[in-house]
Amino acid sequence: MPSTQLSFSNREAHRAWLATQGALPAGFRVGTARFDFIPREAPKPAKMNLTLIALEEPTADFAAVFTRNAFPGAPVLIGRHRLNEARLGAVIVNNKVSNVCAPGGVEASERIAAETARLLGFFPNQVLPSSTGVIGWGLPVEAMLQALPQAVGALAGGSILPAAEGIVTTDLYPKVRRAAVGRGSIVGIAKGAGMIEPNLATMLVYLFTDVTIPRAELRAMLSRTVETSFNTISIDSDTSTSDTVALFSSQRVPHSDFAEFERALQTVCRDLAEDVVRNGEGIRHVIRVRVQRAPDFNLARALGKTIVNAPLFKCAVAGNDPNVGRLVQAIGKYVGAHAPRTDLSRLRLQLGGIEIFSNQVFQLNPEKEADLAAHLRSAELYSSAPPKDGVFSPPVDYPRHERCVEIEVDLGSGDASATVLGGDLTHEYVSENADYRS
Amino acid sequence: MPSTQLSFSNREAHRAWLATQGALPAGFRVGTARFDFIPREAPKPAKMNLTLIALEEPTADFAAVFTRNAFPGAPVLIGRHRLNEARLGAVIVNNKVSNVCAPGGVEASERIAAETARLLGFFPNQVLPSSTGVIGWGLPVEAMLQALPQAVGALAGGSILPAAEGIVTTDLYPKVRRAAVGRGSIVGIAKGAGMIEPNLATMLVYLFTDVTIPRAELRAMLSRTVETSFNTISIDSDTSTSDTVALFSSQRVPHSDFAEFERALQTVCRDLAEDVVRNGEGIRHVIRVRVQRAPDFNLARALGKTIVNAPLFKCAVAGNDPNVGRLVQAIGKYVGAHAPRTDLSRLRLQLGGIEIFSNQVFQLNPEKEADLAAHLRSAELYSSAPPKDGVFSPPVDYPRHERCVEIEVDLGSGDASATVLGGDLTHEYVSENADYRS
Repeated sequence: MPSTQLSFSNREAHRAWLATQGALPAGFRVGTARFDFIPREAPKPAKMNLTLIALEEPTADFAAVFTRNAFPGAPVLIGRHRLNEARLGAVIVNNKVSNVCAPGGVEASERIAAETARLLGFFPNQVLPSSTGVIGWGLPVEAMLQALPQAVGALAGGSILPAAEGIVTTDLYPKVRRAAVGRGSIVGIAKGAGMIEPNLATMLVYLFTDVTIPRAELRAMLSRTVETSFNTISIDSDTSTSDTVALFSSQRVPHSDFAEFERALQTVCRDLAEDVVRNGEGIRHVIRVRVQRAPDFNLARALGKTIVNAPLFKCAVAGNDPNVGRLVQAIGKYVGAHAPRTDLSRLRLQLGGIEIFSNQVFQLNPEKEADLAAHLRSAELYSSAPPKDGVFSPPVDYPRHERCVEIEVDLGSGDASATVLGGDLTHEYVSENADYRS
Repeated sequence: MPSTQLSFSNREAHRAWLATQGALPAGFRVGTARFDFIPREAPKPAKMNLTLIALEEPTADFAAVFTRNAFPGAPVLIGRHRLNEARLGAVIVNNKVSNVCAPGGVEASERIAAETARLLGFFPNQVLPSSTGVIGWGLPVEAMLQALPQAVGALAGGSILPAAEGIVTTDLYPKVRRAAVGRGSIVGIAKGAGMIEPNLATMLVYLFTDVTIPRAELRAMLSRTVETSFNTISIDSDTSTSDTVALFSSQRVPHSDFAEFERALQTVCRDLAEDVVRNGEGIRHVIRVRVQRAPDFNLARALGKTIVNAPLFKCAVAGNDPNVGRLVQAIGKYVGAHAPRTDLSRLRLQLGGIEIFSNQVFQLNPEKEADLAAHLRSAELYSSAPPKDGVFSPPVDYPRHERCVEIEVDLGSGDASATVLGGDLTHEYVSENADYRS
């Protein structure tokens, strides 16, 4: 569940709300730079943002989790080593090129980190490099080195918003969430928007707090929190090679109630996870699946994911068509292939609070059909209109509301539960991804 | 590999070729009927085909495999029992309504089977009922009973084509394949076109032979053949609740070379499996992945499937965009999540015969980029054009050619291999599935 139920009538209202969310905790500064370059592999002009988030002093209290994709990006390989460093002082993020399996990729990221550190007066291993964008291309190192002084020169406290705007690729709007903890706060930013089915981490998420929490506790809390936030979402079942969630404390605000901090961390992470889905590529409906009374958490989460990843059901939702047969198909596909001993005899399904399946048969009639279609329409973020040139693009770049297509799966055979978020499969998704690089 | 490399310049040429494929083996007859009805659950007019394939005499030599989806349709539940019967004499197939988890579904299918048997002079348990279509709706039993005499009255030998045309739903064209065995033959028909990632069987496939093969051998051959034909394809990763492959021998042509029969059966099944993919919902490119030098067959097949099911890669193929980073992402996603100990250090990837990855890094340059794009364009079945009303539909209802997007995955660490067929993800798929029922 989101901690809020927001709605926005226009882009300006959303941007104003983001500004209130974006107040930087004490001890952090943000600077960005933007420049043009020509990729080696496909010589067409491209643009890159550099986003630098620096602590005033390197901190020992940081945590990070990374993708489990077997082809991790060079920054992920470096980041895993950075976890052993005594202190980190900055993150330098680029978009447009993810630096995955590119020849000389690790050396390239280390050069960027080292030059960032030199400009900040830190040691090279105190800077975490991070990249997102096209897989297969190499970093334009020289152009990045030239742009770095501009990002360092722009460093300022006050707001995280320039960083939230800098790290995006196909995102329609920046994502910022915060929670207060005692006299301090946690603020987080996230980058979506495709290749999202995180496996122990999601795309790029950076979390900052001025609350003093020791490294060991910080890392344990982040691991637990990721499991029930970013690891319960899927936009398209694809798992990025760059997934990173990093958390830094500037140790400015003493606070002894660790449980309160963890609750606040969960709030920020769950809100950001829902933001990532709502702003997922081409998403017109967010689908929330609550699986209840399941034998264990892993099965509950897997059933939720099989529903939000079933292409035929996703297309039906896109069309406001309550084709619930496809929903039952998805559950049966997963159980038949992966958990054939699961007892489904007490399965009860609801869509929008309306019972559609129980006692082993569908519970459908024309009145319910109309109510189900109305529920789907109420959760739509915008209507899709046939475009003149054949390229569908979303007409809004802010979240109009936080309503979801609500699905309840009650297995009636256990006490575990999981909530999974996903979205529909639309013409906008296909248009966006049929030629994203050009 | 298909047994042929066909191409057709127009619908008539394709239909003429189908007629040559469709000669019925001795001992079988086909009859169909078509009628209008109103579904109980969503009262809008709908059309249904009844397709009857009858043996002149019930045979002891039949085999069938069914879906492993945990919510099988009523005809699948009945079909599993029919495997124990001494003889079967007919299959009665309806499209439009799949009869899955509908109240009274088993009784409804049994009534249809019993009435079919009565009209044919067989016992009720000698008829196999089969259904495909919307999941969640119940059979219009009374309307079907009224139409049955028409199908029986139409029974004729000669051609399987009326049955191949009768069983379709969203298929663009009928699918018929044959192979000669000694003085006899095997002929098969298939129905696609969505919800296709068979789990030990695919949608509806019926195979008929006049060659005399005992039941035990027939069943063993069908199980083996399905594993490397229908179980290596995926159109959209969804697994139907109605998957059925059934094989009948009319025992007219003695033949002692069982190995030759099995090779012919494999030819027919692999050709039909490729037909199902090529005519898959919205497919503009067939993608063939050959995984070689893998530690075992199951891993090889799983890697092939993860590639043909990766939405971002499928969209790139639809756009003739050689975004091979997404291909590497898909392999890494599967290995990271399900087979983390796999050695990927010798991985070599080719697309259209062009090396794109080896020595643990991408091997890309602008010249290759152009050649890769040309390979994708050469495998396109038709160009997608922006429609005036926003609804994309394929402009051809015949297979123009049998070329594929060819991907080679060489793991360099074993001697197992698998070939998997899938397709791209297109606007045509979304249009077709956003409101299929209406």
